[in-house]
Amino acid sequence: MKHINHDDLLHMPSRYRAQVINSLSGFKSANLIGTHNEQHINNLAIFSSVFHLGASPALVGFITRPDSVERHTLENIKQTKHYTINQVGESFWQSAHQTSANYPAAECEFIKTGLTPYKVEGINAPFVKESQLKYALTLQEIIPIQLNGTLLVIGKITDIICDEKAIKNDGYIDIESLNTVSISGLDSYHTSQRLTRVSYAKPEEELVEIPLNGLLQNSLLSQK
Amino acid sequence: MKHINHDDLLHMPSRYRAQVINSLSGFKSANLIGTHNEQHINNLAIFSSVFHLGASPALVGFITRPDSVERHTLENIKQTKHYTINQVGESFWQSAHQTSANYPAAECEFIKTGLTPYKVEGINAPFVKESQLKYALTLQEIIPIQLNGTLLVIGKITDIICDEKAIKNDGYIDIESLNTVSISGLDSYHTSQRLTRVSYAKPEEELVEIPLNGLLQNSLLSQK
Repeated sequence: MKHINHDDLLHMPSRYRAQVINSLSGFKSANLIGTHNEQHINNLAIFSSVFHLGASPALVGFITRPDSVERHTLENIKQTKHYTINQVGESFWQSAHQTSANYPAAECEFIKTGLTPYKVEGINAPFVKESQLKYALTLQEIIPIQLNGTLLVIGKITDIICDEKAIKNDGYIDIESLNTVSISGLDSYHTSQRLTRVSYAKPEEELVEIPLNGLLQNSLLSQK
Repeated sequence: MKHINHDDLLHMPSRYRAQVINSLSGFKSANLIGTHNEQHINNLAIFSSVFHLGASPALVGFITRPDSVERHTLENIKQTKHYTINQVGESFWQSAHQTSANYPAAECEFIKTGLTPYKVEGINAPFVKESQLKYALTLQEIIPIQLNGTLLVIGKITDIICDEKAIKNDGYIDIESLNTVSISGLDSYHTSQRLTRVSYAKPEEELVEIPLNGLLQNSLLSQK
């Protein structure tokens, strides 16, 4: 096993270092964030930093840089207070990656990448039609992270649009069946292969596999 | 496509709602956080909320609840200022999941789950020997999120221990070759299958596949 110490890290060339550090957190979610500005020009940008913050209230966070190529997303969210998050699927991940190119604000990433905007009445931001699991959010708070000048943007989920077949009896959504992809590092995309779902862990109890539909049967329990 | 609106969300039973909302962010990273307390009792807990915050300085964040089953992790980090993050691999993901059981502080999850603590001189927290990619952090900041009482814990990476074969020429670490797993929802574990690595996106330029080793050859560019 290689041991990279603090001194090694400090002396790495910056691009090499960015690749190393971006690989450390594990697999990242792949999501497109849809917004429009006050002139109703749509914007779409891929983010690998969307994460679950809480179920009640239903909160999702993501990290952005104030001066990065994704600044249009941040500006639009500040203006309209609304945005959509759209899981990236295997059929359009290249178009999703292309949204990270540094397009000027007047250019629409939907048009540039061939993705289709999808409007829902009452929701003040565009969805991505091609995405099989997407939701709308209202901005709650932007928390500055002084350590490196990034921002944590927190939204509350108001509406979810999802292929109904993927929603299992206990509420679990089978995002693997929707061909949702993940990201590793800065530029690698991956599909997934389920190992299994497992029971809530308790001290001194063995884990039990639970079926995909979430309905635990006695027969499965008694196998253990 | 099913449309779940705000009213539907509010009226969902809380466990069902937790499953739904936890499925929305996409695939989550699977990491074990290793700490010890001032009495040098080791603690180990699985987290699905570890995320990349920045490469320079090298910062990683995770979300914790002050009153959750993972409170020992938070208490220990506050006491010692040090912790390790260890990617969960396919060979020990069940033991990793079992660390989420509500063990008392005096009990050590390493012993309870059969995972092996691995100490490195000068690093004030235990690694997980079984993990093929792990790193040590020093606490930088704990940011309270008032919206739901969770905390964002930010650490600076000081040391990385990794199977050298997985580190590619450009710094990308092939975490798929390390059999790192991901999580969906609350309880589903997944291995991955790489689609490909792709080039940095630029306006009006087609994406190019880049080989796993990161060395882009002219022959690949000319295929496009």
